[in-house]
Amino acid sequence: MISPDHPRYRSLEVRERLAWFAREGVVSPEGLAAHGRGEAFDYLLGEKTTESALLAERTAAAMLLSARHPVISVNGNTAALAAREIRYLQKATRAAVEVNLFHRTPERVAKVTRLLEGHGVEVLEGEVERLIPVSHDRGWSHHDGAAAADVILVPLEDGDRAEALVSMGKSVIAIDLNPLSRTARAATLTIVDEVTRAIPAITRAAGELSPGECERLISRLDNSNFLQAALDEIAGRLSHALD
Amino acid sequence: MISPDHPRYRSLEVRERLAWFAREGVVSPEGLAAHGRGEAFDYLLGEKTTESALLAERTAAAMLLSARHPVISVNGNTAALAAREIRYLQKATRAAVEVNLFHRTPERVAKVTRLLEGHGVEVLEGEVERLIPVSHDRGWSHHDGAAAADVILVPLEDGDRAEALVSMGKSVIAIDLNPLSRTARAATLTIVDEVTRAIPAITRAAGELSPGECERLISRLDNSNFLQAALDEIAGRLSHALD
Repeated sequence: MISPDHPRYRSLEVRERLAWFAREGVVSPEGLAAHGRGEAFDYLLGEKTTESALLAERTAAAMLLSARHPVISVNGNTAALAAREIRYLQKATRAAVEVNLFHRTPERVAKVTRLLEGHGVEVLEGEVERLIPVSHDRGWSHHDGAAAADVILVPLEDGDRAEALVSMGKSVIAIDLNPLSRTARAATLTIVDEVTRAIPAITRAAGELSPGECERLISRLDNSNFLQAALDEIAGRLSHALD
Repeated sequence: MISPDHPRYRSLEVRERLAWFAREGVVSPEGLAAHGRGEAFDYLLGEKTTESALLAERTAAAMLLSARHPVISVNGNTAALAAREIRYLQKATRAAVEVNLFHRTPERVAKVTRLLEGHGVEVLEGEVERLIPVSHDRGWSHHDGAAAADVILVPLEDGDRAEALVSMGKSVIAIDLNPLSRTARAATLTIVDEVTRAIPAITRAAGELSPGECERLISRLDNSNFLQAALDEIAGRLSHALD
């Protein structure tokens, strides 16, 4: 148990939640380490949604609303942290939700699927094929999943697959706290924000945007601005950190 | 298996090693997440020992060599990553080595102890008492362990205990990749470097330093310089990151 007076209570509580899901087999050990990396970047960003991330989240909503076949790809960490938030985003955008795991076993797919369904998410089920050209198990996709998407939201993605999805001509929206990661650089749009803040922000925007606003947001998208803004935010905070 | 042509091979290999030790019960799930945080800072530091960290490592060697009763406190992550390196540091500094775990069970203490002993480390064993004033299980110490140390090396420490050890009048040497952590700020000396690079660097310095050099290094110690140098390094790298 973490005392609520600990200066980093919320972050430690989330870490404990993930540790619990790791013991349950939903989150992989590698997923825990990856989460820790995200925590560090979040810490450097002040553990809040920056103005620039909020604009990225609105742009993401515009892309999902304007898509022909939007897909949300969910891994163990995302399911453990944000199953309920994904349900609301799915309702707001009518996106298909697909489970996609790096450390893929039928048992883990079933566990993550049950967790999502328990929170009201409709999950693509049934046959999968290796439709995404990557060497590892994140290459599996349903015919109506990542392979069929024109716009795909990939929270907490690996760089390989993000690059592969972009090279397939898809618009890839990444949620990644590291603005320097391969995923962040490869994506069409990178939201540099924590996943449990980012997903509800996209959902809220999806409920607000008019078709005209969607078009404007998409036409102005330049991902390098989002990445640079996140780097500037971190650098600015570091320069005053020991004051 | 991670392909050696992956751009972050070494870091991923270390993460896989920790994941393996997590499945063995040596490393806790929370330890994996904490490791991930360290990885992110290491990434921002360029995954190399900076000039300033090297000076900190030489200063650490001076402090351990000059101590009356030096102690190295080892947790699960440190044992999993650096058991052999600790053996050499123990030989070079004649420090006592104590196992100290946040998620402490007799089984985990035994596992970590066996791992260290398997690499030739002499580990303090036998009775422990709650000698360090913290509310959690890191308060347990042998009479010849943390409680008796005048100089104590704490790789990968939590902020609570680092503060408690300093408040007991001990000289605390932290190894912490986050220059803003409570541990980093509380310690007498903070080495902002990755543990498997830092420990061998201390060992090498311990074999080289004369008593006069030790005295000079200790007299010039100002920890805020080390913390600021690490922040400057990160900020400098970020400003050129997208060039």
